Parts: sequence; C-alpha cells; structure tokens
Amino acid sequence: MVHFDTDYMEGAHPEVMRRLLETNLEHTVGYGNDEYSQKARELIREACAAPHALVRFLVGGTQTNATVIDALLRRHEGVLAAETAHINVHESGAVEHSGHKVLTLPSHEGKVDAAEVDEYIKNFYADETYEHMVAPGMLYITQPTEYGTMYSLRELSQLSTICHLHNIPLYLDGARLGYALASEQADFTLAEIANLCDVFYIGGTKCGAMFGEAVVAANPDKLPHFFPLIKQHGALMAKGRLQGVQFATLFTGNLYVDIARHAVRLAQRLREAFIACGFKMAIDSPTNQQFVVLPNKVMDELLKFATFELWGPRGQKETTVRFVTSWATSEGDVDAFIEYLKEVAGRMNVQ
Amino acid sequence: MVHFDTDYMEGAHPEVMRRLLETNLEHTVGYGNDEYSQKARELIREACAAPHALVRFLVGGTQTNATVIDALLRRHEGVLAAETAHINVHESGAVEHSGHKVLTLPSHEGKVDAAEVDEYIKNFYADETYEHMVAPGMLYITQPTEYGTMYSLRELSQLSTICHLHNIPLYLDGARLGYALASEQADFTLAEIANLCDVFYIGGTKCGAMFGEAVVAANPDKLPHFFPLIKQHGALMAKGRLQGVQFATLFTGNLYVDIARHAVRLAQRLREAFIACGFKMAIDSPTNQQFVVLPNKVMDELLKFATFELWGPRGQKETTVRFVTSWATSEGDVDAFIEYLKEVAGRMNVQ
Amino acid sequence: MVHFDTDYMEGAHPEVMRRLLETNLEHTVGYGNDEYSQKARELIREACAAPHALVRFLVGGTQTNATVIDALLRRHEGVLAAETAHINVHESGAVEHSGHKVLTLPSHEGKVDAAEVDEYIKNFYADETYEHMVAPGMLYITQPTEYGTMYSLRELSQLSTICHLHNIPLYLDGARLGYALASEQADFTLAEIANLCDVFYIGGTKCGAMFGEAVVAANPDKLPHFFPLIKQHGALMAKGRLQGVQFATLFTGNLYVDIARHAVRLAQRLREAFIACGFKMAIDSPTNQQFVVLPNKVMDELLKFATFELWGPRGQKETTVRFVTSWATSEGDVDAFIEYLKEVAGRMNVQ
Amino acid sequence: MVHFDTDYMEGAHPEVMRRLLETNLEHTVGYGNDEYSQKARELIREACAAPHALVRFLVGGTQTNATVIDALLRRHEGVLAAETAHINVHESGAVEHSGHKVLTLPSHEGKVDAAEVDEYIKNFYADETYEHMVAPGMLYITQPTEYGTMYSLRELSQLSTICHLHNIPLYLDGARLGYALASEQADFTLAEIANLCDVFYIGGTKCGAMFGEAVVAANPDKLPHFFPLIKQHGALMAKGRLQGVQFATLFTGNLYVDIARHAVRLAQRLREAFIACGFKMAIDSPTNQQFVVLPNKVMDELLKFATFELWGPRGQKETTVRFVTSWATSEGDVDAFIEYLKEVAGRMNVQ
Repeated sequence: MVHFDTDYMEGAHPEVMRRLLETNLEHTVGYGNDEYSQKARELIREACAAPHALVRFLVGGTQTNATVIDALLRRHEGVLAAETAHINVHESGAVEHSGHKVLTLPSHEGKVDAAEVDEYIKNFYADETYEHMVAPGMLYITQPTEYGTMYSLRELSQLSTICHLHNIPLYLDGARLGYALASEQADFTLAEIANLCDVFYIGGTKCGAMFGEAVVAANPDKLPHFFPLIKQHGALMAKGRLQGVQFATLFTGNLYVDIARHAVRLAQRLREAFIACGFKMAIDSPTNQQFVVLPNKVMDELLKFATFELWGPRGQKETTVRFVTSWATSEGDVDAFIEYLKEVAGRMNVQ
Repeated sequence: MVHFDTDYMEGAHPEVMRRLLETNLEHTVGYGNDEYSQKARELIREACAAPHALVRFLVGGTQTNATVIDALLRRHEGVLAAETAHINVHESGAVEHSGHKVLTLPSHEGKVDAAEVDEYIKNFYADETYEHMVAPGMLYITQPTEYGTMYSLRELSQLSTICHLHNIPLYLDGARLGYALASEQADFTLAEIANLCDVFYIGGTKCGAMFGEAVVAANPDKLPHFFPLIKQHGALMAKGRLQGVQFATLFTGNLYVDIARHAVRLAQRLREAFIACGFKMAIDSPTNQQFVVLPNKVMDELLKFATFELWGPRGQKETTVRFVTSWATSEGDVDAFIEYLKEVAGRMNVQ
Repeated sequence: MVHFDTDYMEGAHPEVMRRLLETNLEHTVGYGNDEYSQKARELIREACAAPHALVRFLVGGTQTNATVIDALLRRHEGVLAAETAHINVHESGAVEHSGHKVLTLPSHEGKVDAAEVDEYIKNFYADETYEHMVAPGMLYITQPTEYGTMYSLRELSQLSTICHLHNIPLYLDGARLGYALASEQADFTLAEIANLCDVFYIGGTKCGAMFGEAVVAANPDKLPHFFPLIKQHGALMAKGRLQGVQFATLFTGNLYVDIARHAVRLAQRLREAFIACGFKMAIDSPTNQQFVVLPNKVMDELLKFATFELWGPRGQKETTVRFVTSWATSEGDVDAFIEYLKEVAGRMNVQ
Repeated sequence: MVHFDTDYMEGAHPEVMRRLLETNLEHTVGYGNDEYSQKARELIREACAAPHALVRFLVGGTQTNATVIDALLRRHEGVLAAETAHINVHESGAVEHSGHKVLTLPSHEGKVDAAEVDEYIKNFYADETYEHMVAPGMLYITQPTEYGTMYSLRELSQLSTICHLHNIPLYLDGARLGYALASEQADFTLAEIANLCDVFYIGGTKCGAMFGEAVVAANPDKLPHFFPLIKQHGALMAKGRLQGVQFATLFTGNLYVDIARHAVRLAQRLREAFIACGFKMAIDSPTNQQFVVLPNKVMDELLKFATFELWGPRGQKETTVRFVTSWATSEGDVDAFIEYLKEVAGRMNVQ
C-alpha cells in the first residue's frame, strides 16, 4: 500500500528527529524560555522580516485557533470565517467553548471573498438591531484552504485592507502554510503574510515537525497577555524547548519550504496523471491536496493499492476523493501509484 | 399615531396590573416558593394536563433560551435551529456565551422541516469524523415563528417523533405562544405541546404579563438541577412571586388565550385590509404578526399615521414591512388605520 | 407575625407602583431607549454629579455582577473579593460561568482591607510564576456589606487609590446602597462613590423598586460595548421603560434615600432594644441589617412572633440571627416586636 | 552545575526516544486509533487490572485536568480541591475558563482530609440556601501532592468511600504518579488506585515521556463522550500514536516505575544528606521532591553548584527550598552535590 490519506500520519522529518535526539538529555529551563526556543523565535522573526514579532509555540491546530481567537475577540464579538472553515466544522466547538460564535461567509473553494466580507460588516452595522447580534470582531482564513486552494497576494492584500478599514484583525491559519509557500503559484512571501495578517500561525504538525504550531504577530501589541491565555487554554508545554528545537531546525537553511516543495511537486505529478488518464479534478489545487472525481469502480480498484479519503459520501456512480502528499511521501510511491492508475484507467476504458 | 411596531411596548394587561397592585404589600417568601407561584404552577400544570410538570419562572426570552439550552445540552453538543431562529440571530451570542454552538437548518418561513432534521442527524453520524464535529444535541423551534407562521399538530408530532427517534430533546420557544394558541388555524392544544415537547416556555412578556416566561417540562427529569442553573444564569428573581401573581392571573379563566385572540383577530383584520387594497402579503401568517410588501410611496404615507417595522432594508421600489398587534391594540386603532390605508391606496391608485 | 427576614419580600414602594400603573398603557420604544429611561438616567447622573456617566438598567443583582465583571475583566484575569462576598458564595458560580475566577481576600465583617489588597497584588507580581496564575484584574466590594457594615469615605478612598495605583478598576455592588446612604454614619455621598468607583450599581430590588439595578460608570469608557454584553447575559429587558419609570420615581425628590432612612431608623431601634434587653450584637451595623446573638430559648420565643433568619447553623446554647428592615417595615410592627422582646427577655431573666 | 530544579527539563527517557525514532517513518492512522495506542491502552489496562478501562492520551497536565473536570462536572457544580492544589493555583484559571468553580478545602501538606471533605458536603446540603451556591460535584486530589507527600491506601480508601457515599466522583491527578508508585512508603498499587478513583491520570511528561498523560477510567461510563471533549479542549493530537509509542514503552517491563524508583532513591539520598548535615526538612516527603530549610548563606553557596527552587519568597535568615530528582538525574551528580553540601555545611559550622 502507498499512502495519500493525509499529511500527519508519520512522525517528524528525519532532521527534526535528529535534533530532538541530539538535545534530548540537555537540561534547559521550561515554558519556552530556553535557548532553542529563543533561537527558533529569532529565525522565524528573520524569515518574517518582523524583528519585533511575538512568536509563541503551541501544540496543535485546534488549540491554536481557539487560543488566538479567544485572545483577539472581545466578549460580544464573533469570528468571521468561510462556512467550510476548519473552526466551523471540525474543531468540536472549540471556539464556542470559549464563548464565541463563528459567523459564516460563503465559501469559494474554501476561500472568502473580500467584497463579501465588506458587505457582511456593512450590512451588520446598517441593521438597527445590530447590538442584539454578534459583532464581527475578526476574520479567520486558511492558507492554503481546506480545499488546497490559495489566496493570491492581491487577495490577501484586499482582505487585509478590508479588515483594517473596519478595524478588525485578520488571522491566518497556516496549518499547512509550508505547502502554500512551496507552491509554484505562490506569489507571496512569508514576510508579506506577516505584514498583511495581524496574527498567523506557521503549521508544524503537518509540515515536518513532530508537533507544534508557531503563532506570529508582527506587532506584539495585537496579542497582549498571550502567555497566560496559552496556559489557560492548556496549550503551554512544560518542555517548551521541544518546539524550539523543531522550529529552529525547520527554519535553518529553508528546510521548512524545501520539504514542502517536495510534497507539492509529487501532488502535482498525481494531478497531471489523473488528468492524463481522463479524470476530472474537482478543484484546481496548486498545493499538496488534490481532489479528483473518480468513477466508483476506478476508486474501488485504487483503494486496493493506496489509501486516500472519500471527500463526502460515496456517490451513486462517481465520488470525489482526496489525495494528500507530504514531506514523507516518496517519489517511488508516486511512481508506483501512477503506473497502477494508468493500468486501471486503461483496463476500465476511462475516456 | 397608532402602533403596530411590536407587542412589547406597553406594560401589563390591566388585570395583571390589578393583581400586582392588590398583592403589592403582602409579605411572601422569596425565589418562587410563595403561594402565588405555587398557584401559578398548579394552573399551568392543569392547562398543560401535566400534573407532575416542572414549572419555573424566568424573566425574559433570551435568558430563558440560554438557560434551558445550557441545561439540556452536554458540553460536546450543539443546538439545532432554523438559520433564522432568534437564538441564532438576535440574542447577541447568549448560547455561545455558555459554550454551545448553534447548528443551523434551512428555514421555511421560520420553520424547520422534520425530514431535514432527520437528514442532518443521519448525515452527521454517517460522517466518519463526526467526533470532531459538534453533535446535534437538541432541537429548538419557535411557535409561532419569528415570521408569524405556525407548526401544525402534524408537524409538531413529526418533529417530536424524529427527535425522540434520535434521542434528543425537543424545545419549543413560546415567546408568543398565546398568539399561536389563539389562532383560528391552531389545531393543537397546550396539552399537546406539553406532551410533544420535552421542554417549552409560555411567553409572558409579549402576551399580557409585565415580564416573565414560564418554563415547562412535563417530565421534570428532563431538567435536573434547573434551579441553581437559573441562578447561575442570573435569571432568578428574588421576588419570585411577581411572576407567580402574573401567571396565576393569566391562567385563571383562560385570560392568556382570550387576550391573544383579540390580538390575532385584529391582525387578521389588517391582513384582510391589505389584501383588499391590493397589497401582497409576504408571508401567510395566521397569528399576530403580518408581513406585507408595500410600494415605498405607500409605506411612507402609512408611516405618517402608524408605527411599524421595515423587515430588512428599504427596497428600491417596494419594501416588506411588519405589522404586529397585541392584547394592547385597540379595535379603534385598527379601524382608523384601515380607513387611512384605504384612502392612501385609493389615492395612490394601487391595483 | 411581623417580618424581619429580609428586604425583598414585598413588591414595590407604593409611589413606584403608582407610576407603573399610571404609565402602564403608554406605548414606548423598547430596550431602554424610551423617555422614562432617559429621564431616570438624567436624574441618576445628577445625583452622582457625573454628567457623562453611562447608566444602564439591569434586572437583578447576580445578573448585574456577572455582566459587569465580565465586561471589566480580560480573559486571563480574575476578580478580587472578600471571601464572604456575595459573588463568591451565593451566586451559584455565575462569575465562573463566564470564565472568571474569584480571588479571595480576608473578610473583616464583610469588608476588605486596602493594605491587604495592595499586598495581594504585590505578592502576585513578585511571584516568578505569576503568568501561570490568575491575575487580579479588578476589585469587587459591597456597600453596605453582606454583614450590614460600611466602608467609610476614607476606606473607599484608600481602596480606590490602591486599585488605580495597580491599574485595575474598582467595582462597588450597591444592592442595598440606599441603606448605606441613609445611615447616620454615612460620611460619603453618592457623588463621591461615583467618583471613587470605576463602576457601581444602585440597587433597586431591595430598596423600593419592584426590581431593577442601575449600573453607573462616571466615565463611560470603562464599559465599552456594554449594551450587547447585557443582551448576551440575558439581562436586557424588552420593556426597558419599566426600570426607567421606577428609577425616575426613586430619584425624584430624594425618595430613594428617604425610604431607606425609614428602614435604617427602625433597624437602629431594634438594635437599641436588643442591647437594652442585654443581648449582644454580633456585628456593629449602622444599616438595615442587624445581627444579634440570642439564647436559643429566647430565639425560639421570638420566632413565634416574628420572622427572621438564623445566620449559620443553630448553636448549642445561643445562635446568631439576622433582623432586616426595609422601606416596607412599619413603625407599628417594630413597636410591637420590641414590646414582645422586652416581655420575653424579662420572663426569661436575661442579664 | 548539577540540576535539581524540576523534573521536566530534559526530553524523554532514552528508551522512549529510541522507540519514537524506530517508528518515526511508519504510516499510521490518526487520533489514537493506531496500533501503538491500542497496545499502550492494553498495557495500561493490564497494569491497572481494569480490562474494560477507558484509556485516552492527552498532551499536558493543565489541559488534562481542565478536560477531565469539564467532563465530570455538571454546569452547576464545582470541584473540591485543597487550597494548594495545582488547579487552584497554577493553571491560569483553566478550570474557570470552562465555567467551573474550584471549591477549596484546607491543605495538609498538600493533602485533603476525608473527614473535612465529608463535613464540607454535609454543611453544604445543610444550608437552606444551597441551591444558590456551587455544589461540590467531584473531588480532585494529587498523588503525590505538590509537596511530595502521599496518600496512604487507607487514606485513598477513605476519600473514595466518602466521595461515593455522597455520589460524587474521585479524580486523582497523577502528574508525578510514577514517583509515588516507586516510593518505599507506597502501600498501594496502580490497580488499587484504578479501583478507588473514578478517573485518574498517569503522568508521562514528568515521568519519562517526552510529553503525554494517560487518562484512565476503570469504568468507561464515567467519561461518556470524552473523545469530542478532548478535541473541543484542543487536547487531541493528530499524531496520537506519539503518545501510544511512549506509553507502550513505559508500560513494557515496568519501565515506568523502574525509572521513577531511581529518582526517588536519589531524592532520599539528598534528604538523608541534608539531615546528616543538620538541616531541617520542611516536609517529610517519601517521593522525588524534597523540601529543606536552609540558612540563606548556605543556600547561596549551594546555588553556585546546583539549580533548585526557592519555595516561596527568600526569608530573612533562612529559606525553604525544593530539590527535585527525575529519571534523568545521575547518581554522579548526587554524589558530587552531597560532597559539596558536606563541605559547605562543615565550613559554615552548621549545627
């Protein structure tokens, strides 16, 4: 079997593991005050061209979203997000657990539209009863989105402008940020993201780390008293150096993007193979997640050879499925899969 | 000016005021343990044919919804409701403040459809990742709805059956319940509502009381430890007898429904007058709220004579508006308005 | 029976009832935007010498405390209060329901000591691990306290100074504020309270109103976005004018303090009678609550004639009990009780 | 320098690291459904003699406490705990963040007394106003405590009996459980803990794992719907197998207790050396934390050679300090420190 089910099914990139092992018996201070965490923060600030940035390491994505959103919102405010956003669908109500409502916007293959954000906020304040409703207090976006799509620099800039026009912060969930940065279609840099977004996080768990997410706010005033809030949300690691070591490794010599580029390249190979075999891509994704519509009989054949996820329920005749690559996917597995795919497609007279 | 803006702009029905005044200087015990509250509970149990029902008095609607929903849901659960539901739109995030998500269903003129409830729950548990999502833990409906429409007995029965099939409670928000019970189209009784809904509340604030809502659970086991939760939600009145006196008055000799019938009759007179003058009703409402589409020039003329609300933003040429009657609306005001309406319609050549 | 059990067992002061009745059928706008609420706000601002004050009307005390505390604290902060404070003991966890911890200080007959507040905050920030602990974010006091005692002007001034030195707001719970203002020992004015406390509330429920509490912040910037928070806490009355009418009545011609003075005078008569009969006051209270230690046999005799509360469990030989007067207590009842008390004391050979 | 500051300053026990490395590139399913997690669960069930136990892996202690307490309490309930308990002092209000109050009991060197628990609950329900107060809904204890002390089997049994008599669950925080089990004074087994406590957790972070805590409920009915609650609390690891691998390693061949025994033995050597040199132990601790009262001049000398924590503020002449050993402490470091200690004590003429 070859694996394309998702990008968090292995441990850590070997280089990360090597450094964790090397430093394992060192004695450091706790809670992220150690020198590895300091170094990682410095490297991230450098990569973000944000010398004064607040950089804090949390453990996982749901936790990071809940903590940041709780930090950014006042009690009467909610968070704007695409209706397909991870925080609205797959985080078991973590945002609501902290008392905040998710205010949904239409999803365009996972993306929100700046004009629709603007319209939402304008309509909100145009309604005479707005003080009886939950105020839009921030905007949450994912980059890349849950559908593998990306915001262009222009789109990010528009969202940033609209948010700041309405005086609300823009927060970018970068659980898979490496795979966006590594995309051939990426027309933005990490520094530009840091500049346009008030707060964002650099995903580690899905991008080479064993675990860990790095929250970044170029202007630390955007996240006052963030440390006790991390603790309150149960997101503070005693051994904070664990994330320090990992992020310092990933941000030394561009490793973070290099290993993501490998994944994206393999994902694009899969994409091309699907198209070449006559299958229709459900979404045009330039990152490490590929969504393809497969006849059920083809899907069933492929499932004998590879793991991948059905994206929604099985259809009557055809089904949309998701293939995901990661830093851990091997070229050989992709070769083998493509060969098998061609054979199946040929045998089943696709086209 | 005559007033049709909403049904909570006066104090209390004169009979309620009379009883409040009569009992004003009596010394009773607090927190709803007085004899007036006991009597009101008994009268409500009788009206509901629910001799063992838990009956508790709270102060206002948002508070009642937040408290009941908090009592019925477990921490990982959310509340199903129409996307237009009051709890989803106009309660400033009170449900989320207690940590719960509102899970939205399509709204059919304010109503939810039993088949869609069933489908939602089935799809939820069919999704392999359902434990990462907020579980549907109860169903919230309004009777009449925010649009003046009503569920028939058959519809209530279907919703009750579906809820119980999926082992979740059905909760009915009866902020304007009197106006539903008093409708000519009502094919259900209070006892049937008490039997079909696990919990519901009988609205006082909009139906003759100065304030107060009576929460009813025919089976008190559905709301264990409800008293401290009322207190925790800041919904417990020291002078509990105030609601006791009011509800005892409203449930003596059918006053609650009688005064609502007056309001519904006047609303239907308005409806007929609008239709007779050639205007289109936006919604076919059998209760005390009427939604009519008016040409803007007509609307502007009417606004000189009467108060009523625009339902959404002013349109280019025509606008949907809401007229509401209550126990406090006088026949004379309705006569005068209809006369004025006819004159305006005639003058402006409607039809 | 004569009643000294507590001060919220009747309805409203007759003058308040008269005004509620007079205005009952008037049609006003909702949610406190009516002219009665406006008038009440103006009268309160005047009484507080705080022309720009934010004044908002809520329904009850627990709710008011929960809402104000939620508005004043940031997520990582807790509220300092005496360990005997109402919010720490008798509000069913309403403060914690909103996510905040009550940080307790020693109680000196219900009062906190400014030096101890200062010490608490200094020790907190001196602890290297303070970011792992709940930060003291505000101070809550009651005036008069749950034990009938009062802060002097000097004490209030000291607390205010300490709070502002540490940059936290001072919040005063005035559920029984009238009985403090009316005390002979009061050396402060309402204006001084408004000036020294960032936020406070003027209790209506226990001081002549049917219900209602008036939150005051001389500087409205202390409570930004307070309206939606009131709604979110279920504390917003649709018929806001109800509190408007009541507070406008109470703050016309000094009625609020006048009726409280009556109660305090009667309480002092009770106090003097207890002392004259040889009983020991448990607390030296200058307000409307009196705590006296009674031999159980005396207590049992008195309970045949009057209602009053045991303050804690019944003792082996003697028990501390509480007598409370209010605007509704009659001079005649006090006369009769004192006569009876003397007879019982004589008969039982007290002294 | 040698290190006795705390027990979470290194990475993981070498054997744990070895297994993480060995399994690093394996592809497993997520969220704890992998075979390593299954194996770890089986090993823990076996060690607990609880074949049907629910076993779930979380990441850190504060998070685990917040999640379990949230799962065990109903909305109107609080958690009983010693006033020195970690959840009351050092978790930044995580329990309150979920809406629950910590109800404090006297601390006897970190322990609560069964008779005092009983008395608290009896007094609570004896108070007529108990429904206005936060109900004691569970008991939280630590084993060993924050002061290194331990409950004996008899004490655990008494607490368990009292809790079950009052129908509330007993929850044991075992952040350092290994060091209790490994103590020479331990007269209880893991199986007995699993039997007496409704829920407890086996600490990994401080006891050999890189991170991770294993929540155990011998009767899984005690924690219904725990999985979505873990997710909601941000405590669910995508790569659940990471804790699986670690706990499977620690619970193979008694490694968990063996490495703790090493630490406890070294801690006892420190203890004996302090006593031999004439210093007074502040607390009589049979586990890996030792509290000793040192003259300040001695303390200052020792700080040149070793890291350890002041336990509270520096005293005038002497100060209580804490020495902690762990699986990572070397015999050689202890030898060297004791030699140095003797030299300092001799030089400074202690005794």
